[in-house]
Amino acid sequence: MDQYLDLPVRELVARMSRRELRAETVVRAALERIRVQDDAIHAWQHVGAEAAIAQARCLDAGTASAALHGIPLGVKDLMDTADLPTTYGSPIYATHRPALDAAAVALARSAGAVVVGKTVTTEFATFQPGPTRNPRAPVEAPRTPGGSSSGSAAAVAAGMVPLAFGTQTAGSIIRPAAYCGVIGYKPTHATLPLAGIKPLSPSLDTVGVLARRVDDAALFIGTLARDVSIAEACAQAPTPLRVGIVRTPHWDRASADARTALETAARVLQGLGATVEDVGLPVACHGLTEAQMDIMAFEAVAAFAPEARDRAAEFSAAFARQLEAGRAVSGERFRAALAHAEAARTSLAVLLDGFDVVLAPSAEGEAPEGLAATGDPIFCRMWTLLGTPCVHVPTGTGASGMPVGVTVTAPRHTDAHVLAVAHRLHQALALAA
Amino acid sequence: MDQYLDLPVRELVARMSRRELRAETVVRAALERIRVQDDAIHAWQHVGAEAAIAQARCLDAGTASAALHGIPLGVKDLMDTADLPTTYGSPIYATHRPALDAAAVALARSAGAVVVGKTVTTEFATFQPGPTRNPRAPVEAPRTPGGSSSGSAAAVAAGMVPLAFGTQTAGSIIRPAAYCGVIGYKPTHATLPLAGIKPLSPSLDTVGVLARRVDDAALFIGTLARDVSIAEACAQAPTPLRVGIVRTPHWDRASADARTALETAARVLQGLGATVEDVGLPVACHGLTEAQMDIMAFEAVAAFAPEARDRAAEFSAAFARQLEAGRAVSGERFRAALAHAEAARTSLAVLLDGFDVVLAPSAEGEAPEGLAATGDPIFCRMWTLLGTPCVHVPTGTGASGMPVGVTVTAPRHTDAHVLAVAHRLHQALALAA
Repeated sequence: MDQYLDLPVRELVARMSRRELRAETVVRAALERIRVQDDAIHAWQHVGAEAAIAQARCLDAGTASAALHGIPLGVKDLMDTADLPTTYGSPIYATHRPALDAAAVALARSAGAVVVGKTVTTEFATFQPGPTRNPRAPVEAPRTPGGSSSGSAAAVAAGMVPLAFGTQTAGSIIRPAAYCGVIGYKPTHATLPLAGIKPLSPSLDTVGVLARRVDDAALFIGTLARDVSIAEACAQAPTPLRVGIVRTPHWDRASADARTALETAARVLQGLGATVEDVGLPVACHGLTEAQMDIMAFEAVAAFAPEARDRAAEFSAAFARQLEAGRAVSGERFRAALAHAEAARTSLAVLLDGFDVVLAPSAEGEAPEGLAATGDPIFCRMWTLLGTPCVHVPTGTGASGMPVGVTVTAPRHTDAHVLAVAHRLHQALALAA
Repeated sequence: MDQYLDLPVRELVARMSRRELRAETVVRAALERIRVQDDAIHAWQHVGAEAAIAQARCLDAGTASAALHGIPLGVKDLMDTADLPTTYGSPIYATHRPALDAAAVALARSAGAVVVGKTVTTEFATFQPGPTRNPRAPVEAPRTPGGSSSGSAAAVAAGMVPLAFGTQTAGSIIRPAAYCGVIGYKPTHATLPLAGIKPLSPSLDTVGVLARRVDDAALFIGTLARDVSIAEACAQAPTPLRVGIVRTPHWDRASADARTALETAARVLQGLGATVEDVGLPVACHGLTEAQMDIMAFEAVAAFAPEARDRAAEFSAAFARQLEAGRAVSGERFRAALAHAEAARTSLAVLLDGFDVVLAPSAEGEAPEGLAATGDPIFCRMWTLLGTPCVHVPTGTGASGMPVGVTVTAPRHTDAHVLAVAHRLHQALALAA
């Protein structure tokens, strides 16, 4: 019986901290779920069973306990780990063994989390998929888990681990969370350190988490960020809310499923006493998706200059095309896009002054069929560029029975508030279901 | 005779591109200057003579030429190089050999620059000095070159190389430029990629350059940033200027030398037709130095979490103290400092709307005596946090005959304009001298 793995992280930590439950037992349960399920899902690039069990035994042997004591953790294979290979999803790094953990990984280990393995990332966190399948899709009709945090979303959705690191540059946390039906939390840009994570576009790259519950995500990120207001966000009960709906300039790309998800979330929040109204984006916020694409393309060319000099033959055709497109973006256009984003952040903060949070689409709809592509991050790009905290909350299923949901967001540095609202929404949806 | 090494970079590149001068000759001349001088200066952590000569020969054998064809370049030892050890100024990395170049280094090599070696950095680009001496100070009365880009500033000041990479998190480009009497250019934050550079505080870390001429610096950074407006900035002749003087909240720390430097620069710009007036900082810009210190301290703790877990005994006492101080900064305080900076950027842009550029102190005065410390970045911290483009221009010497100068800056993304003004100021000072 391994049902304790499905407990809220806070409760699981409490049991292990009180030594009612051994960390080794919990870690072995996670490893067993991986063993049983992963041949069909391929969420994991590497599993480090021995090291994980050894670390759990150390925790059991000690008397201390930290905020994530004994929690089995998946680490996206874009992040360095000293005890496990780190491929960045590229054959160039097939045998790469970093000397040190990524800073965020070291912070998680210091808080007592046990790294059970590395989860599959698309190539360099861009668009060339790995082998991961969406655990919510039938085996005979596979669907993408989304990307680039493909393995992390799938591993959490399948219940293999309660928490897994993700990173987002366009839509790489929110989109796979949406497709796999789990919580995805992308904190305000620069909340967690990027040291030891393969850079793609540092003006956008953000470390976050895939989780089963909003409170689990808040505890994890708040602990690593040493931010009590985030860690304890879900204990707040936000009173009468004013909710803005931002349909974004891409609303015509939202499927009926995505539209229904937004309506469902709005209705549930109204049921909790919120007022809900549509918010039109100011002119300063037009073109943000295109600006995000310019910045990502330009910075990727710079970040991969070393590999492009020596190892370009080992890029996928898709990645090579992406770099080629980036070379067409001039430094002047890059700077203009950065300046555009700065103006939009100011403008958005003014616009949203009267609102507590924003609801927006997370994706066009259900996870696309097949494994050849990871879906389009179209609805996420602008929020990533704005650097706002985003939480994906699943609202139910779409026409094909696959998960759909919404993004809860608000201006930068309001993570605690966004999490509190997302938590209430998620709870109310669970009661309604 | 190796005087061609002192030519403007653009002219040196032109001669080598026309094959009037061999890259190998130029690189050997730089290596010879290093051989003759560096025992007394210690600007270099490693010199890669063989690889540099081999690369120069390749350039000579080819027919192509790029914007930095054959230019000998110093690389701060905080930046990864695949063909040279990379110590980050720490014994922890004494034998470290990165697999790949830092992205900025790869960009420089792709543009034809020849890396002749790694220049001394303070420990992890913070405050524990390396062995470098200020080449402008008498041997019997040594003075610090400043830090953390100590070796790069010293190498350029001594004429060993025309260009050397620097990085700045507090004042690590501008301060050593000031102390050694060379041009220091810190571009707008995020202009160049940080991939492969040891992170200290990514919200602040910025790649830039030490140079002998403003145009050399503009050509170098503009080429790497694929930004023609920067590369060609000095060809512009800015007409009647409005110059603001920002004495900063630390004016009482400016020595008579630093005050004279600011007056000299203002007078020279007036002579070029500029109007000059004092600008008081708005309330939103108060406390930025303290906010910069909070952000740097907080992010350093996160960035060095891996080393702190395993290798803390190899930190210097000063670095360990700095991390300890950072642990006292909460996530909430860190976020508040980031939000403060964002508000200040907006406020500053409004305030400076009527001005072309700002003059501000670069340092308290001449380089402090001795080698035990690298001086205080007090006057640089706020500009680094604001992310503005900064150019240090030497104006002359102070009471002890050591260099002093000023910072030219302006809101983010106005690099080309700042460079153009700095260039005119530097030229006019040379004529006046």
